[in-house]
Amino acid sequence: MKVSLVGLGKVGSAVAHAIVLKGLADELVLVSRRTEIAKSEADDLNHAAGLEEHSVDVRAGGDLDTADSDVILYCDASPAKSIDVDRYSAARDNLQRLHERIPTFAAGSPQAICVMVTNPVDVMTWFALQMSGFPQERVFGVGTLLDTARLRRLLSEKLSVHASDVRAYVIGEHGEDQVASFSTASLGGESMKPSEDLALLARQAAESAGKIYRTRGFTNYGIAGATMMILESIRNNRRRTAPVSMRINDYYGVKDVCLSLPAVIGRRGIERVLRPELNEAEQAAFHRGASRIREAIEVLTPSLEAVS
Amino acid sequence: MKVSLVGLGKVGSAVAHAIVLKGLADELVLVSRRTEIAKSEADDLNHAAGLEEHSVDVRAGGDLDTADSDVILYCDASPAKSIDVDRYSAARDNLQRLHERIPTFAAGSPQAICVMVTNPVDVMTWFALQMSGFPQERVFGVGTLLDTARLRRLLSEKLSVHASDVRAYVIGEHGEDQVASFSTASLGGESMKPSEDLALLARQAAESAGKIYRTRGFTNYGIAGATMMILESIRNNRRRTAPVSMRINDYYGVKDVCLSLPAVIGRRGIERVLRPELNEAEQAAFHRGASRIREAIEVLTPSLEAVS
Amino acid sequence: MKVSLVGLGKVGSAVAHAIVLKGLADELVLVSRRTEIAKSEADDLNHAAGLEEHSVDVRAGGDLDTADSDVILYCDASPAKSIDVDRYSAARDNLQRLHERIPTFAAGSPQAICVMVTNPVDVMTWFALQMSGFPQERVFGVGTLLDTARLRRLLSEKLSVHASDVRAYVIGEHGEDQVASFSTASLGGESMKPSEDLALLARQAAESAGKIYRTRGFTNYGIAGATMMILESIRNNRRRTAPVSMRINDYYGVKDVCLSLPAVIGRRGIERVLRPELNEAEQAAFHRGASRIREAIEVLTPSLEAVS
Amino acid sequence: MKVSLVGLGKVGSAVAHAIVLKGLADELVLVSRRTEIAKSEADDLNHAAGLEEHSVDVRAGGDLDTADSDVILYCDASPAKSIDVDRYSAARDNLQRLHERIPTFAAGSPQAICVMVTNPVDVMTWFALQMSGFPQERVFGVGTLLDTARLRRLLSEKLSVHASDVRAYVIGEHGEDQVASFSTASLGGESMKPSEDLALLARQAAESAGKIYRTRGFTNYGIAGATMMILESIRNNRRRTAPVSMRINDYYGVKDVCLSLPAVIGRRGIERVLRPELNEAEQAAFHRGASRIREAIEVLTPSLEAVS
Repeated sequence: MKVSLVGLGKVGSAVAHAIVLKGLADELVLVSRRTEIAKSEADDLNHAAGLEEHSVDVRAGGDLDTADSDVILYCDASPAKSIDVDRYSAARDNLQRLHERIPTFAAGSPQAICVMVTNPVDVMTWFALQMSGFPQERVFGVGTLLDTARLRRLLSEKLSVHASDVRAYVIGEHGEDQVASFSTASLGGESMKPSEDLALLARQAAESAGKIYRTRGFTNYGIAGATMMILESIRNNRRRTAPVSMRINDYYGVKDVCLSLPAVIGRRGIERVLRPELNEAEQAAFHRGASRIREAIEVLTPSLEAVS
Repeated sequence: MKVSLVGLGKVGSAVAHAIVLKGLADELVLVSRRTEIAKSEADDLNHAAGLEEHSVDVRAGGDLDTADSDVILYCDASPAKSIDVDRYSAARDNLQRLHERIPTFAAGSPQAICVMVTNPVDVMTWFALQMSGFPQERVFGVGTLLDTARLRRLLSEKLSVHASDVRAYVIGEHGEDQVASFSTASLGGESMKPSEDLALLARQAAESAGKIYRTRGFTNYGIAGATMMILESIRNNRRRTAPVSMRINDYYGVKDVCLSLPAVIGRRGIERVLRPELNEAEQAAFHRGASRIREAIEVLTPSLEAVS
Repeated sequence: MKVSLVGLGKVGSAVAHAIVLKGLADELVLVSRRTEIAKSEADDLNHAAGLEEHSVDVRAGGDLDTADSDVILYCDASPAKSIDVDRYSAARDNLQRLHERIPTFAAGSPQAICVMVTNPVDVMTWFALQMSGFPQERVFGVGTLLDTARLRRLLSEKLSVHASDVRAYVIGEHGEDQVASFSTASLGGESMKPSEDLALLARQAAESAGKIYRTRGFTNYGIAGATMMILESIRNNRRRTAPVSMRINDYYGVKDVCLSLPAVIGRRGIERVLRPELNEAEQAAFHRGASRIREAIEVLTPSLEAVS
Repeated sequence: MKVSLVGLGKVGSAVAHAIVLKGLADELVLVSRRTEIAKSEADDLNHAAGLEEHSVDVRAGGDLDTADSDVILYCDASPAKSIDVDRYSAARDNLQRLHERIPTFAAGSPQAICVMVTNPVDVMTWFALQMSGFPQERVFGVGTLLDTARLRRLLSEKLSVHASDVRAYVIGEHGEDQVASFSTASLGGESMKPSEDLALLARQAAESAGKIYRTRGFTNYGIAGATMMILESIRNNRRRTAPVSMRINDYYGVKDVCLSLPAVIGRRGIERVLRPELNEAEQAAFHRGASRIREAIEVLTPSLEAVS
């Protein structure tokens, strides 16, 4: 399996390292404008690969070297200027680059699955879907899988249970209006009815990224882990269920926007979408997220049209 | 971790092979009355172990060689005479042997976790708990974990989803009155309300062991797999949730009997018991299973008392 | 990857179990004349598979169901009558069956790699190569890989070093005249010059199979492990080095016979043959093995010609 | 197993990420003077850990929080000012910090294994051994394991063989005078006699770190991989053979200095040292490395004495 990794910032580098350690590609192409650094990073990763039982072959390349990829992991992002800055500003830069490059990726790898890692992921996924012309099962974003992982980690600690046995999905917007859908959550067959305690944990999980940003300036390990779960499910056709950002086709009245719902991920991308039942508060939060993302899409569309 | 495996029939042998392939013990003692065969089996397993990255040290031994075990896997069983024979007959033989030997095991390994694999597992677990004097979190049986695995496999195929994402637990009796608790089952946050289709799959799963028995005369791979899941969760303190046969302390009015409920398994054995909500039909089946096992316990108790 | 496993005796069953536990096939076809038992075994293995992270799909089938296999593991053998019986007797039965069936396998899976597990493996490999018409890099036998594993296990224990760091290959005949090529063996860069101690360990390793046979009546775990190492190297294109039985093309004057030499195993089968330097005693043993196998081939050829 | 990781620069961070992905600790303490950043890094790593089957518990701490560690990985280093700068300058800073802190580590974890990752690793290992008062089997450095991995990777590609089957050790100084001991190297039982081709590959391997430094400014993935191999062998008592920097006790006349020789690594640290036979050119290079390191030790000792 050929995987192309676009963007070698903090996130892209952590993703590349994880791919090598987990052996989740046969061939890994690192695409970065800083060609010499990408070559050195490939060399260093190859040294690590030589110590593993499996063996990933890493090399640096340009956009054209992504041709015939099975999976394109899009991690390219402008350096975040500040955590408090208007989101649209960074989004504009990220979209601009996506806009210029995605025709090359789509033409070179017409059968690829395109996984968006770059934020704002719901917006990026929407535009990647439009610009690529790919079917929607092959363009999706890491979305609230990471939020789900964070919440499960907290619940796992609190309940002393393995995180994979805590079945609580965070869905909706990858942002403030994310929805911890406790009304359908379960733990070993026991329901986890919404409660103040659970709501508090959900808030802690949702805020944990911000806390990390404010000190480190970025997050990369958690998001790399979430990307690995998706890549592993594609590579080995695992059909694992994970909430990912995708085009929503009429779920509680929401459509024409990308948000996260639990989906079955396999070799062909999204193989099935699950539609959890939400209570009223959860529906309201889902709708708020949809509005926020739709607004962002509307604001950002003109700037792109001007470009082309 | 020292693991003692008591009984080297079809099940015990498959369990031993799986332990070596998965590296789930540092030291594995094979306990069988057929000493020479056990030695040869240990040699053969050591050859297999030498090809693995991890390394299990296998040796044959008698009951006394189980001393200082961390885990005792009890797989000893009289050869089943026929699938249609009165269950109590085989149970009597199995219990008799348990009765004679468990004082040695308990005295030699007072801190061990004792996992009962031998059928009728709910009955065997009950008596092992009484005879060992161990606390109930350290004596439990593989129970309906295997039934759960069978059901999830069928659902996984039907729904094209990874089996671990199908959250449907079979609980209660490991036998005819097992309960597929669909009323609390979920798939990626979607509920799986009880239906005719699901009930049919549950019946197929419940009947699959019988089908295998009637042709092969035994089952061993599935039960070995279930035993591995438990052993892995103990060894690595995973805190995975699995339905296992344990003493029930007032669940829907049931007590003083061993049946399966989902439990969190860790280094100290059962670390937490989950109590799924059941609908009326499920409760009724759970009660039927409880009656059946309690009756078996009553029938079988006198024969044991006669022995001692 | 589709793997067909021909023969479901003790060895075939252990191989099937190991494939499921290690996830070394996507599709596994169990070929046995006892169709109903094979179906039950497939069901039981599928239950085990449902508990694993990876997922092998197991089914029973006839010779024609092997079509389009990537790998055929040939484990079919007449039940061994006695350890002391003339080897040729069992060989005749095994060869007869191979002769009848291999045209079906070769026609159905013209690109398959055919791995011979059945004994006498050097003889079986020779005839499988002739009968299949396959190139020699795609027909080879497990050979002295198992003997190598046994020797390394003993050395590993004696030297307290991981078995994979003991670089001592057993080559030549899979039988009495196997050659422990200590003259080129090494341990972490230290040479292991031939010595009385090492020779004793080599004898113990060579005799260990016989000891197991005499008590259990068969060996299966070690040989299953060796088969897994080969299958893993094929499936994941690992290019691991293992001594396997193959057609020898002029090595110390030996040719037109199958014996084991270290070979690099990858997705296309044997990708490279290593040619260790032997001292005189080692050469002599290699030649004795060659004579023995060539004689067996000559004795057994007419019986086959009579058949066709 | 409790692992403390001292220093969270590029190398330390890559090591931490690898530990979480591989599950090579139960408890991982990140020690850094930048406390808030270390906390955020721990949070981010915990999010990644929550997606893994195994589960590492990561937290940030100060020097005193390393108490009761089983393994201390010392990665702390002053930021390298330039690749061309006098080595002693960086070494002085690194040693100074080691000098101040190692009493705390040694007192808190008197049974720990101390693995030095910081460069110049041979010098750092020497001083860590002196300052800690630990026995020499519990203080060693990653040394030429990384150089060995680089060389094997090149040979593996050239020879199309799995890197672990290329048995060529780089020993001696982790620097210019490293020794690729081809005179005892082997490939599947074939000797690899020294040749111009091999020497060229050895030079390429030796120079690859410098190439990476000159563009990226640092290397971290390869060294993290080498550290993982050592940590894995300790944690699981694998007894893998790896060249590590250790106090040399009379090898070709060399003593009273730290350099790399192949060693068996297990739960107690270095369990055995291998002593490859070297040809004259190899001996000469080993001696040159010894002189260089001894000189560095002599130059650097007074500055430390001044401190205390």
